[in-house]
Amino acid sequence: MQGSVVIDLKNAIRTIPDYPKPGVQFRDITTLLGDARTFRRAVDELVQPWAGLKIDKIAGIEARGFIIGGAVAHQLSTGFIPIRKKGKLPHQTVRVTYSLEYGLDEMEMHSDAVLAGERVILVDDLIATGGTATAAVKLLRSIGAEVLAACFIVDLPALGGVQRLRDMGVPVRTLVGFEGH
Amino acid sequence: MQGSVVIDLKNAIRTIPDYPKPGVQFRDITTLLGDARTFRRAVDELVQPWAGLKIDKIAGIEARGFIIGGAVAHQLSTGFIPIRKKGKLPHQTVRVTYSLEYGLDEMEMHSDAVLAGERVILVDDLIATGGTATAAVKLLRSIGAEVLAACFIVDLPALGGVQRLRDMGVPVRTLVGFEGH
Repeated sequence: MQGSVVIDLKNAIRTIPDYPKPGVQFRDITTLLGDARTFRRAVDELVQPWAGLKIDKIAGIEARGFIIGGAVAHQLSTGFIPIRKKGKLPHQTVRVTYSLEYGLDEMEMHSDAVLAGERVILVDDLIATGGTATAAVKLLRSIGAEVLAACFIVDLPALGGVQRLRDMGVPVRTLVGFEGH
Repeated sequence: MQGSVVIDLKNAIRTIPDYPKPGVQFRDITTLLGDARTFRRAVDELVQPWAGLKIDKIAGIEARGFIIGGAVAHQLSTGFIPIRKKGKLPHQTVRVTYSLEYGLDEMEMHSDAVLAGERVILVDDLIATGGTATAAVKLLRSIGAEVLAACFIVDLPALGGVQRLRDMGVPVRTLVGFEGH
């Protein structure tokens, strides 16, 4: 990836100071998504390493991962799987518990969302500690998916999420890094 | 649209009886989205009437409208605007109150998500009474958007939502109708 692309995408992301609480710099990608040029460029760059491979499905994490995942699935002509907060999916699900900053949460996927051996790329807007993403990988693997890669527009490298995914054997693609958390 | 397309997409939607409560037939589009062929066909058909027009942005309604809206925005090479449940967007918002089956709810959009005069297509998975969709149109118009059209994969015509949108002057595109509610 060229440096100019990184700068372009990074500049398209708005930083909201002290949101959702004092001391946190929130990285708001709605400005990137709202611009046709940067949205398309981000999708192109996310899929670039996997464009030649056979991919069956994109799994997107609720809610911002749905926007980017829907576009990535369209770009790669694959199906789309929603990974949702618990209680939102109407059919039989598999469920995983994961840690948040304070306490635990659960996410779900339909049990029949993937056939054994199907090749899936996980998509979300941002990776921080990787709590959500590593749980999503476990969920996908629990029903037999091969997790080919995970893609995120934003990485907060100080929080170590990318390394946690790589330690699980998942190749990771991120486009823009921000210091701090 | 050819009858075969309608049948194909309709068959790809799974009906969950008595969900979320007895007597309701829930129309589950995750099976349509999970199949690369029907997902792509649905996006192609949704945008077909507007493909030749100048469109600035797609507005998607949280959460399933994010998946379809992300794909439609990619197909039409436009920006994407999220319309979210209250308290989820980090910057200054405009807000609208709307009626649900029991009580009221609120949805929000960033105040700067659209420039005055920008041409927007609204996207969601399903239209029933149109409470959410008509509120979304009001929100978009309140910040100067021209709402060019609204698109939904599923229509429940008995509930009258499409007519309510048309009464507001919004052209509507739906792909599959189901009787009942």
